[in-house]
Amino acid sequence: MENVTLHDLKTRLTEVSDLSNVNYLLGWDQSTYMPEGGGDARARQMALLGRLAHERFIDPAIGRLLDSANGDLSEDDAALIRLVRRQYERAIRVPAAFVAEMEAHLAKTYNAWTAARPANDFARMRPLLERTLEFSRRYAAFFPHAAHPIDAFIEEGDYGMTAETVARVFAELRAGLVPLVSAIAAAPPISDQPLRRGYSGDAQLAFGLPIIRAFGYDFARGRQDLTHHPFMTKFSNGDVRITTRFREDDLGDALFSTLHEAGHALYEQGINPAYDGLPLDSGTSNGVHESQSRLWENLVGRSEGFWTHTYPSLQTAFPTQLSDVSLDQFYRAINRVQPSLVRVDADEVTYNLHVMIRFDLEMQLLDGRLSIADLPAAWNARYTSDLGVTPPDDTDGCLQDVHWYGGLIGGAFQGYTLGNIMSAQFWNAALAAQPGIPDEIGRGEFGTLRGWLTDNIYRHGSKYTADELLQRIAGGALDVNPLLDYLTTKYSALYQLNG
Amino acid sequence: MENVTLHDLKTRLTEVSDLSNVNYLLGWDQSTYMPEGGGDARARQMALLGRLAHERFIDPAIGRLLDSANGDLSEDDAALIRLVRRQYERAIRVPAAFVAEMEAHLAKTYNAWTAARPANDFARMRPLLERTLEFSRRYAAFFPHAAHPIDAFIEEGDYGMTAETVARVFAELRAGLVPLVSAIAAAPPISDQPLRRGYSGDAQLAFGLPIIRAFGYDFARGRQDLTHHPFMTKFSNGDVRITTRFREDDLGDALFSTLHEAGHALYEQGINPAYDGLPLDSGTSNGVHESQSRLWENLVGRSEGFWTHTYPSLQTAFPTQLSDVSLDQFYRAINRVQPSLVRVDADEVTYNLHVMIRFDLEMQLLDGRLSIADLPAAWNARYTSDLGVTPPDDTDGCLQDVHWYGGLIGGAFQGYTLGNIMSAQFWNAALAAQPGIPDEIGRGEFGTLRGWLTDNIYRHGSKYTADELLQRIAGGALDVNPLLDYLTTKYSALYQLNG
Repeated sequence: MENVTLHDLKTRLTEVSDLSNVNYLLGWDQSTYMPEGGGDARARQMALLGRLAHERFIDPAIGRLLDSANGDLSEDDAALIRLVRRQYERAIRVPAAFVAEMEAHLAKTYNAWTAARPANDFARMRPLLERTLEFSRRYAAFFPHAAHPIDAFIEEGDYGMTAETVARVFAELRAGLVPLVSAIAAAPPISDQPLRRGYSGDAQLAFGLPIIRAFGYDFARGRQDLTHHPFMTKFSNGDVRITTRFREDDLGDALFSTLHEAGHALYEQGINPAYDGLPLDSGTSNGVHESQSRLWENLVGRSEGFWTHTYPSLQTAFPTQLSDVSLDQFYRAINRVQPSLVRVDADEVTYNLHVMIRFDLEMQLLDGRLSIADLPAAWNARYTSDLGVTPPDDTDGCLQDVHWYGGLIGGAFQGYTLGNIMSAQFWNAALAAQPGIPDEIGRGEFGTLRGWLTDNIYRHGSKYTADELLQRIAGGALDVNPLLDYLTTKYSALYQLNG
Repeated sequence: MENVTLHDLKTRLTEVSDLSNVNYLLGWDQSTYMPEGGGDARARQMALLGRLAHERFIDPAIGRLLDSANGDLSEDDAALIRLVRRQYERAIRVPAAFVAEMEAHLAKTYNAWTAARPANDFARMRPLLERTLEFSRRYAAFFPHAAHPIDAFIEEGDYGMTAETVARVFAELRAGLVPLVSAIAAAPPISDQPLRRGYSGDAQLAFGLPIIRAFGYDFARGRQDLTHHPFMTKFSNGDVRITTRFREDDLGDALFSTLHEAGHALYEQGINPAYDGLPLDSGTSNGVHESQSRLWENLVGRSEGFWTHTYPSLQTAFPTQLSDVSLDQFYRAINRVQPSLVRVDADEVTYNLHVMIRFDLEMQLLDGRLSIADLPAAWNARYTSDLGVTPPDDTDGCLQDVHWYGGLIGGAFQGYTLGNIMSAQFWNAALAAQPGIPDEIGRGEFGTLRGWLTDNIYRHGSKYTADELLQRIAGGALDVNPLLDYLTTKYSALYQLNG
């Protein structure tokens, strides 16, 4: 029988988790169904819950319980104690009043952004964002041991990494990507016109649902709703929701965002139900989370084998648009490489260049090299130099991502590229263990892949760190080569590049 | 400038209100969009928020602040102190642990009921309901001064009333209703066949929205969603939502539930925005609340003048079903009197007989004259004797209403009939002050009525008690005669009764 200390600790942790989970529901509602008039009070309510969760977590009683919880612990309980100890030592550095003030500001900023982005109104966001940067710096200053202020955020989202290690990995990846992007730019272009023929939103949504059901997304423990900026959110082990959006002139938007968010959701739905309500009941890092969304979106969802099986039903769903489009034309269209303005619409090859721009700008904002006033110009300059495209407005420039408008500035983006890197490492490991996976995918079956991922990644939740998972599964550290190999092989074939 | 004590008190009260409001959002989600798998954790989360709200409200610091908050108070602040004092003196009688335990039980019971009602499975609910009755009695016992256990609940929902006064008023009303029901039963029946011709749900919902918009329901501060058992819920002054349902074989179901819930919502949306986040920001009693839902549903929405204006657009919306139905036939169909099994489907005349059955059964359950095991039989016996109809199953018998399955047993129903009584009193007062109201309604305009109700009832929130509102507006106490006069006049004409 569980000892009293551990039971008391878990009860307290479940309350903290539930307050956060309730706050996620408030956020989900804010992004899906909340009427405009609800914004002010919602900001106040989210700030209150954020503060209560934080206050209850930094209660010295939790520290004492952590100190006492030792002796004969199960492996899971030992992992819980280790994780909570790490989170607790971080949390007690941040005063509850700071959290409350910050949450209220962030909710207000998010509400303003939902109007300012479509209105291309960076001026409206500027004072709010300046305040966000102030909060971000104050937050980073609670962790004075960090070599760079962004480390305070990286440690939280991608434990084990630092600004220095991220920068080194990004440089390696960049060195491989830039020549590939150049070679593709010199090759004959691919047309994505088949995706732009006018697709009804309802039919797009209806097409995506059976696919993610086949992936293994459990609709008895989840649902999909519409929003502006797709996301996955979790309120408990039994309630893991995804959101999407659609564009009638872009068949890829709803479809691939659905596969992407379903990947996140498969991870969360796959966690050991015994962890429900505890801090272990969550993906272990931003990077590992993104490795799963990208694995299902790209390595599965943009593969030739997947579409060999799936394309006939897409043609059936959209006969007027697709009857004259061959599988090969379609497969090429969804894998077209084209440097562009918007990260979430980017192809697999250029995507990481978008992330690197944001990571560099975050560092510059945090260490004072860049001001908010100069952000739009700096953003546009980097897009021009790195991607060869210049944003015509801020809507598709520095206003495009929700992250800085609904959260602090720092650590929001590196996980996307870390995730892409890991997705290829995990994919290779899965295929080494289960070589039949590609054939199964070619038959529209995903059980072996999902099972392997569940056994090796999902069910552990936050029991292992990202580094430990890599060691256990991929037999080593973060490595950009599997991703570069995958991209080079796939896109050399697609663009008929000469090696 | 507001003094420090008052400011501190209001800050604390806003936190308590916000915790409750967040819990209402959890409840709304539970009833509209939550996937099945979310139920267990949702129950735990709702119990946590209920306990936190209660704990924070019964903090002795609030008692001290109430004691100190005097001196030069504005009229609104004095009303706030009076209301909070009353609520506080009640709340401190109820231990926080009791609230937590009760909330967890109620959430679990509600989840079970959503499956048990359609399955006609009272056996599944019986042990849960026995536990609910235990909680209800324990709750009542915290208020030992009450003459009957139900008084503890009546005082909360309909302050100013007691079991004794409710029973007296109900007897007066019953004395007037029974001969009217008998006379109608002896008259040639009216057909409601025009309502049962098969109406698409989407078209029904689309028809209701512009009507409640014209009533004054503000969709920038609200929205309508589907649920099993329609309700209105409020998360802040700027977010007051309604829910509905539809039946393709009953045109009245969605329509009148929409008008009904919109009436509740007009009340809440109409409250002085300065009260946002404070206990004043809520309708003053169950009865007054119901007076507004019933006023808009019945005195407006089932009136001849309203349909003279509105019926042509209904015919346009449903030409195949209604082109051969005259306005008079339609008006008669929606006002058909027919003793029936289900309260929410009942006509204006028999509706209050449904309420009286529930009120009597609640008293018997609470004081021990009736057991849960015997509830289905007692329910069915009363329906047979009072309404002349016998439920063929529990689905449309004692499982039909959410109240006992999502809340305690006691005080859940009397407000419906008190509301009907007051609706006629308030209606007469509005027409005495603004005789042009019926003509306006005949033109599809509702501004004068809504304005009068806002000025005299809505904007005050809980500033005045139900009794005070009656005194201020209707110049006297609760009086069944306006309702009896209204029903007698309307239905004598409809059924051509001889006086």
